[in-house]
Amino acid sequence: MLQAYSADLLIHNIGALSTPVADETECGVPQVETVNDAYLVIVDGVITEVGSGSPPAVGNALDAGGRVAVPAFCDPHTHAVFAGWRCEEFISRLQGAGYKDILAAGGGILSTVRSTRAAAQKELAAGLQGRLDEMLSRGVLTCEVKSGYGLDVESELKMLRAIRSAGEQSDIDVVSTFLGAHAVPDEYQDDPAGYIDDVVIPLIDDVADLDLAEYVDVFCEPGVFDLQLADRVLRAGRRAGLGLRIHADEMEALGGAGLAAKLQCDSAEHLLSARDDDLLRMRDAKVTAVLLPGTAFVLGEPYARARWMIDHGLTVALGTDFNPGSCPIIDISLIMSLACLKMQMTPDEVLAAVTINAARSLGRDDRGILASGFRGDVVLLDAEHFAHLMYRPGASLVHSVISGGRQVYCRK
Amino acid sequence: MLQAYSADLLIHNIGALSTPVADETECGVPQVETVNDAYLVIVDGVITEVGSGSPPAVGNALDAGGRVAVPAFCDPHTHAVFAGWRCEEFISRLQGAGYKDILAAGGGILSTVRSTRAAAQKELAAGLQGRLDEMLSRGVLTCEVKSGYGLDVESELKMLRAIRSAGEQSDIDVVSTFLGAHAVPDEYQDDPAGYIDDVVIPLIDDVADLDLAEYVDVFCEPGVFDLQLADRVLRAGRRAGLGLRIHADEMEALGGAGLAAKLQCDSAEHLLSARDDDLLRMRDAKVTAVLLPGTAFVLGEPYARARWMIDHGLTVALGTDFNPGSCPIIDISLIMSLACLKMQMTPDEVLAAVTINAARSLGRDDRGILASGFRGDVVLLDAEHFAHLMYRPGASLVHSVISGGRQVYCRK
Repeated sequence: MLQAYSADLLIHNIGALSTPVADETECGVPQVETVNDAYLVIVDGVITEVGSGSPPAVGNALDAGGRVAVPAFCDPHTHAVFAGWRCEEFISRLQGAGYKDILAAGGGILSTVRSTRAAAQKELAAGLQGRLDEMLSRGVLTCEVKSGYGLDVESELKMLRAIRSAGEQSDIDVVSTFLGAHAVPDEYQDDPAGYIDDVVIPLIDDVADLDLAEYVDVFCEPGVFDLQLADRVLRAGRRAGLGLRIHADEMEALGGAGLAAKLQCDSAEHLLSARDDDLLRMRDAKVTAVLLPGTAFVLGEPYARARWMIDHGLTVALGTDFNPGSCPIIDISLIMSLACLKMQMTPDEVLAAVTINAARSLGRDDRGILASGFRGDVVLLDAEHFAHLMYRPGASLVHSVISGGRQVYCRK
Repeated sequence: MLQAYSADLLIHNIGALSTPVADETECGVPQVETVNDAYLVIVDGVITEVGSGSPPAVGNALDAGGRVAVPAFCDPHTHAVFAGWRCEEFISRLQGAGYKDILAAGGGILSTVRSTRAAAQKELAAGLQGRLDEMLSRGVLTCEVKSGYGLDVESELKMLRAIRSAGEQSDIDVVSTFLGAHAVPDEYQDDPAGYIDDVVIPLIDDVADLDLAEYVDVFCEPGVFDLQLADRVLRAGRRAGLGLRIHADEMEALGGAGLAAKLQCDSAEHLLSARDDDLLRMRDAKVTAVLLPGTAFVLGEPYARARWMIDHGLTVALGTDFNPGSCPIIDISLIMSLACLKMQMTPDEVLAAVTINAARSLGRDDRGILASGFRGDVVLLDAEHFAHLMYRPGASLVHSVISGGRQVYCRK
């Protein structure tokens, strides 16, 4: 939970302050501006001044020690609340087990559903809290977390309550998404429509009434939820006042990206197989493309066409997709490296994708840029240039994290 | 520098102790054995007992808190001493610059040579010390470091002295390798043979006399040092009493792997393009294949055929190849993930590759296994199974590092 607004703070002796520029990012071509020998003033949690040279006198001062400053990161797509890792499945796959062998051995997403259903809300919240701490140490101050391993009324509500409770204990601003339509549970094995009608649609209203989520999401793929069902889920979400996200065209070009455009969703996510025309419609409808290269990396899939999307004017954000199955990567900076190395994004584009673009896709327009009027959410890096985040995969460069002018993490 | 042998220690309450098994790894098919609810006794720095259940009374006790214990890691291939990152080059490449553009802009390995020549020995040692600290926090207790950015008498000796001096300050056992034959310096642009005769061969004797390296290495590729020159360098190293390593068949199948077999080198490294027959000769000559998937990952090259090598009985070790150009990855656990995800190695094979197999390739037969008679070099992991090291790329799982019975790192 982000503190409303906290202390005044001067951050001085910043070797280089690098930030996406507001107006440029809106047209999908992000630019990063750098101020050398910089300082930053935060008053009532909001940046009031960014300058170079001699800083003004402010009561509270933090010496950045010549480090690089960037906006704190935002992870717009995670499945970070769950019980039970799936390491056994990872090992079996490497030993040659196929998809069917893993299902036969009780693996796959439904195994996470079983263990999440069996877990107490407290246990789920505690697990999530530990993961939020890990994210914070990587510079994340805003993070989306989805339900979707409960797949029944009680278990989905339990997950969402666990998200709320962990969020209240964390310095991270946790954005909750209801993803009841994540998979078809055993009870409705051949009847996805029945599941949507009986469980998901009624739950959407409950979730909105209880204020347990800001967004609704749906996994739209052949064999899971088709376009028509996805459309119904999203429209029900809109009626209930929720924002809309969609898992679209990950494995097959079903047209989820086009649906996102039609419904003007806040984001469409994955998009590995999305068609050109659907992507262009997303651009025109101002739907953010949330790309998740960690999943392609883990599964050995082809990466989403980030270069094409950016060159055609789409707004691209990046997320971890952190989950115990297809992407157990919690480290947003490893995602940044993958975006450069495997999707040919430039470091400037990546910085915008994990700050301003990701935050806007979550309705957090108040952050993601280091300029007057934005939240004082800052990360200090032990590096001489912010692009070391991408250049050095697996390095731990985050030295300090400042939330609204309050230091919430410092290494050692 | 590894302390000769230090304190007695009981490590108890180990949730699972997982270790490669000695005799199995020798035939190239590594197996890992796991003892649950385990303890470990270290006397005079050496393991005297591994057991399960109630531990014996030993003066000094460390409660592992139910964590997983594995042997500490060994990184058998790094270029960790250098001045100057090459982040600008990384950015240019992503903006579309080709190999020639980068050379024209003063980039590439020779830019590292320029900055390393210009750096003081103290500065080089300080840089390396910082990187050794990072490696230690990832569980590495044995690490090879190569010279090879000096490429003249004075600068190569300066690098090797910096390695020695940083090693003396570190809890890591640093193994020094003389890689004068890393590239052809500007001064000998069209005369690699002249460089070998004038600089490298005479230096080999100096380095051996001054006890500045344990190994000699050579970069054997078309356009750099051909088979004949590599042969001369390695034979000179052997005459001087050094162990032999070779950068072989990374870009083209020149036959470096075959040369390694012929000379019975301790290791041949990279091997992305090595031919089957040469690899089989390596197996017969008991040359360890040191694979470096981080470099293939960064450069977008095809990975070495680890699966084929292991299935044909070669001994495979894994290293980072950490350097400022082709592989700025310092995190050995990210290498472990790559080995599983991109080279289809099993977690058992990977654990052996970063412990016993890597250590043996560096002549450190006294470590890499948790069994009586081996050094008490132990890593405790915040995980329920050692395979989480591979399953969760970018996670920081190392909780504690114990060197010869002495705790040398503990998180927070």
